[in-house]
Amino acid sequence: MSAKIELNIPENHPRYRAMMIRHDMIEGCHNKVVAPAGLIAQGRGEAFDYLMGEKTNSFADRAIKAAAAAFLLAEKPVISVNGNTAQLLPEGLVKLSEATGAPLEVNLFYRAEGREEAIEKKLKDAGAKEIYGIGENLCATIPELTSDRRLVDPRGILVADLVFVPLEDGDRTEALVAMGKKVITIDLNPISRTPRKAHISIIDNLVRAVPKMIEYVNELKKLPKSEIQKIIDEYDNKQVLRDSLLKIADRLTELSKEI
Amino acid sequence: MSAKIELNIPENHPRYRAMMIRHDMIEGCHNKVVAPAGLIAQGRGEAFDYLMGEKTNSFADRAIKAAAAAFLLAEKPVISVNGNTAQLLPEGLVKLSEATGAPLEVNLFYRAEGREEAIEKKLKDAGAKEIYGIGENLCATIPELTSDRRLVDPRGILVADLVFVPLEDGDRTEALVAMGKKVITIDLNPISRTPRKAHISIIDNLVRAVPKMIEYVNELKKLPKSEIQKIIDEYDNKQVLRDSLLKIADRLTELSKEI
Repeated sequence: MSAKIELNIPENHPRYRAMMIRHDMIEGCHNKVVAPAGLIAQGRGEAFDYLMGEKTNSFADRAIKAAAAAFLLAEKPVISVNGNTAQLLPEGLVKLSEATGAPLEVNLFYRAEGREEAIEKKLKDAGAKEIYGIGENLCATIPELTSDRRLVDPRGILVADLVFVPLEDGDRTEALVAMGKKVITIDLNPISRTPRKAHISIIDNLVRAVPKMIEYVNELKKLPKSEIQKIIDEYDNKQVLRDSLLKIADRLTELSKEI
Repeated sequence: MSAKIELNIPENHPRYRAMMIRHDMIEGCHNKVVAPAGLIAQGRGEAFDYLMGEKTNSFADRAIKAAAAAFLLAEKPVISVNGNTAQLLPEGLVKLSEATGAPLEVNLFYRAEGREEAIEKKLKDAGAKEIYGIGENLCATIPELTSDRRLVDPRGILVADLVFVPLEDGDRTEALVAMGKKVITIDLNPISRTPRKAHISIIDNLVRAVPKMIEYVNELKKLPKSEIQKIIDEYDNKQVLRDSLLKIADRLTELSKEI
């Protein structure tokens, strides 16, 4: 139904990519991969992305590099996948899994009938070989969590020392941190609870941040462990959050002068 | 499906109303009143509302008062209704129509099967007696517009001197302005094209702004025309937009100090 809208948009339109992603997310909702609430969340992200200039800012680049370093030093890293991330960047998630050796684990707020299978198919079509958190493997529980998100794979999130939870909510992030896990998130909204609770918060669009993270993983792999550790030691998540807020504030102040 | 989420939220939760509205919009999508793209738009609005403190700020109050004044001086005002506005505030739209004498006209980007009827039912259930822009009355065209939005009621938008188009896009707003109509909009995003093109732009949440507008209509009705005209003459839409941008910038700067 939205194909009609999007196909009218010329490729040189400045917001072409954002429009195409919007169209793709709606498709994902029709296919059950994306929940209706996921569309609203996508819209919130769009607003913040627009405010930050729809590009990877320096504060995000610092966080992406630190995240790559953390992946390389982790013993049991896991990539948590929800409906929105599966729809937005399935190939990117598979490639990140390959580059880091971290398995993909599906973790959903709500497991509607056919939804798990739709997400599994999306990831398999993108090249995923094994996917945790599906079917009978979903047999462990994180009691600190409510909703279907408490169900986890005993080989994955349950025993992981590092969990990458892009586009997540504050409750889940907080519970994972309380369990002693290192938590990396991607969230376009710097004032939501998620990036405040996580150890490394990438304030950027998933579709830009993950490919960049893969580049960093492959680059940092060549360094000795001590140098990788140094990147993490020097990383300041609070400064990243402050910088992102001030970036938006500056942009709005500039825009106010143009009216 | 989201009832489960929302029912866990206590009524004294600071974001209770926002959560309830989110739940209601998802219901509206299941009932065809709201398009999937409308959910994404709702999310964008949520983000800006949150940034502005989820309240009617003074710049919005000025615009709401000017809008009420414009309604009272218009000869043929019309209230344009889309899926999101019908779902968010059906009773409010009906009451505004009664207070101003402006008919409700359904105008949709995309008229999917059953959608027009679903919106008509939503408005009738809320007390609407006559609704323009439905069925065989949808027989005039605004050639400047693309999509199904070009289809209008010959008694309504086509001949109106004032069109209230809450939650609209820039193209439509621009086309209506180019036709010589006075255009009032409600848009939570002060940097989108819509509020820049409209004559009176209310940077606020529809669910707060419309009830306030009805209050102003009933209050200003008692004034002589010259005083109502004065409110419009003194209204500065560019200043409203500047103030809204600076409000968000200030809030973000404050938040950056709290991290």
